[in-house]
Amino acid sequence: MKNTKIICTNCGKAFSVDRVYPRCDLCTEPLEVERVRTGTITDGDILRQTILERYADFFPFSEGERTLSLKEGFTPLIESSKLASELGVKSLHFKNESQNPTWSFKDRGTAAGVNHALSLGYERIGTVSSGNMAVSVAAYGARAKLKTVIFVSAHIPPEKLDPIAIYDPLLIRVDGDYGDLYFQSLAIGKDCGIYFINSDVPFRVEGSKTIAFEICEEMNFEPPDIVIVPTSAGGNLRGIIKGFEEFLSCGLIERVPRFVCAQASGCSPIYEAFLKDNEKVSRFQNPDTIAHAIENPFPPSGNEVLRKIKQNRGIFVALGDDEILRAQKRLAEEGIFAQPAGAVPLAALAKLREDRSIDEESTVACIVTGGGLKYTAAFERHNLETAKCRIEDLADFVGDRL
Amino acid sequence: MKNTKIICTNCGKAFSVDRVYPRCDLCTEPLEVERVRTGTITDGDILRQTILERYADFFPFSEGERTLSLKEGFTPLIESSKLASELGVKSLHFKNESQNPTWSFKDRGTAAGVNHALSLGYERIGTVSSGNMAVSVAAYGARAKLKTVIFVSAHIPPEKLDPIAIYDPLLIRVDGDYGDLYFQSLAIGKDCGIYFINSDVPFRVEGSKTIAFEICEEMNFEPPDIVIVPTSAGGNLRGIIKGFEEFLSCGLIERVPRFVCAQASGCSPIYEAFLKDNEKVSRFQNPDTIAHAIENPFPPSGNEVLRKIKQNRGIFVALGDDEILRAQKRLAEEGIFAQPAGAVPLAALAKLREDRSIDEESTVACIVTGGGLKYTAAFERHNLETAKCRIEDLADFVGDRL
Repeated sequence: MKNTKIICTNCGKAFSVDRVYPRCDLCTEPLEVERVRTGTITDGDILRQTILERYADFFPFSEGERTLSLKEGFTPLIESSKLASELGVKSLHFKNESQNPTWSFKDRGTAAGVNHALSLGYERIGTVSSGNMAVSVAAYGARAKLKTVIFVSAHIPPEKLDPIAIYDPLLIRVDGDYGDLYFQSLAIGKDCGIYFINSDVPFRVEGSKTIAFEICEEMNFEPPDIVIVPTSAGGNLRGIIKGFEEFLSCGLIERVPRFVCAQASGCSPIYEAFLKDNEKVSRFQNPDTIAHAIENPFPPSGNEVLRKIKQNRGIFVALGDDEILRAQKRLAEEGIFAQPAGAVPLAALAKLREDRSIDEESTVACIVTGGGLKYTAAFERHNLETAKCRIEDLADFVGDRL
Repeated sequence: MKNTKIICTNCGKAFSVDRVYPRCDLCTEPLEVERVRTGTITDGDILRQTILERYADFFPFSEGERTLSLKEGFTPLIESSKLASELGVKSLHFKNESQNPTWSFKDRGTAAGVNHALSLGYERIGTVSSGNMAVSVAAYGARAKLKTVIFVSAHIPPEKLDPIAIYDPLLIRVDGDYGDLYFQSLAIGKDCGIYFINSDVPFRVEGSKTIAFEICEEMNFEPPDIVIVPTSAGGNLRGIIKGFEEFLSCGLIERVPRFVCAQASGCSPIYEAFLKDNEKVSRFQNPDTIAHAIENPFPPSGNEVLRKIKQNRGIFVALGDDEILRAQKRLAEEGIFAQPAGAVPLAALAKLREDRSIDEESTVACIVTGGGLKYTAAFERHNLETAKCRIEDLADFVGDRL
């Protein structure tokens, strides 16, 4: 590892870069890898590069320490002039994270985390998750030939278990309080030498930085005015902010966007804390949203997200299921089929244009965090239309409908 | 369009590049765009390039005629030293087409086809398919704001319909012989001005060329000895062969790989024709395989694939469901979760190493044509394991299993 530190986001205490325990010993807030202030993009062709190679200056890995990859990242930024015009903004771009190896943004942070684990000599990794993160850690653990332990709730349905189990991890359905499971994982990790790559580990945040880096490159180093991020645990938003800030420090861009922390109304602990002007996020009671991938009732990076978005003069917003489903359909009609959580930014933009929180001169990027096939139960909530016809009547039938 | 022709693959008759009808008027065999003999890769960074821009010399589009894209292609080539060593080959690479916009290779050909349609002024496109191709055409049709007509069999289950319907095409379940539907589509297309981008249109083959181009780049212009392609209609294999041959003509590589046409035993009309030494492929009776995505009983490019693979001294092989499922699991344990059809090349390699058709000095590339979430029914066929445990026993439980 390079000579760098891991720093508490709240109190500034510094720790060794070899640290695995993800919270500050003093204030229990999340940690982050020391900010990079000089660096540039590594030349090369991304057909033969990984994100950790292209942005090597922005990671604490030494040469030879970042070899594990399934070629995460380098996802498309798709512009929609139609939706930009309908919503009344200058330009609108979708960062399509569904084109990752396990079809969500999680692969970026998993790649960074697994390489950290490997560089420290770990032979066991794990995570607590029932969704995108579990799938991603199971896939990378398999790829790295590491013993991989996944804790899920005892009650998750087979359609969520199978896409994790196919990679052959030690997959354990745990009967008990899901909130406690996170703390159990840290204790077991320490005892058993398992690096738990949970949502709040600093290296997961590092992986998410590359979303910002790529957006800068894709937009010719003129970042959008607004970046909208579906927010659950908070790590992805933290990473994206950190990415833009590091590129600014390094002189690669001239300004940082305003960020929108977009949650589902059915699970919006950070938004609620903002509304109540609280400095700390409280546990959200009885979470229930179609956007399961962002249904974290007590986000480990919640307080830090509150601090960062306020500093940034950013925006907090929460969206109902109907708004999210409408956005999912609208996005599919642009050719991008997102899981409900991935459509939250478009729903947020529609709402924030309506209440004028975002103005018409804005250039906007929405982070589409995962693919629609990850949550097929949402199909039932759409009124999807098909027609039926006998083959001998087909020509007339089609003619009538054109 | 550039000044080029469309040529019959069998009799050599030449047609205008504006032609939409996909078969030869004389011999009814499939057509292809005239081969490119001089050309090179367009400089640029693929974060800001599309496949049609990077390989512009190899497409008949003029500047401004290839603007429609969801950023298909530029998929990873993942090396597995573990599987190479287990199977006894020099090196083994997986081209992971599940990282396309609709999670299959079809997006490449759809992008080429839609741009052809747009350049000819079409406002309506269509396809006959119930799988990857239907999803892809629906997505690109939505993106292009074209009226998009999809014909599927009346009997397809909702889990196949919904991922097409979400993009909002005119989706018609047609009661009648599915084989006839293809010919109906061509007739209706002509009458109603609909460009049917079916599996055998020359521009779909052109799109598949880019798989070969990327493999060449990813392997530093030293192509693998063997390329294994799951084969159904035959267009993808034809495109990949054509891609390598064009790069050879242009001096970008020094030799063309040997190709393996890999089919499912439950639907192997090309393999059967080869076994019987027939020059023409016959309709396969009662097709039935877990690899639904390659279950075409009467492949429109079958005869041409027979000719090309024989010329190339390539290999024909067919795989049973058990072999395919074993390969699917084995590939997931490398971190790549493919749909069953996408695991067929790995199953083929295992078989062809066993019977010594492929030797141990070979470098091999397998085309993983689509993602595993496209066909979740396959989960039932695996014996996927999970454990269950109370939270208070978790530490001991994990400790015992490490």
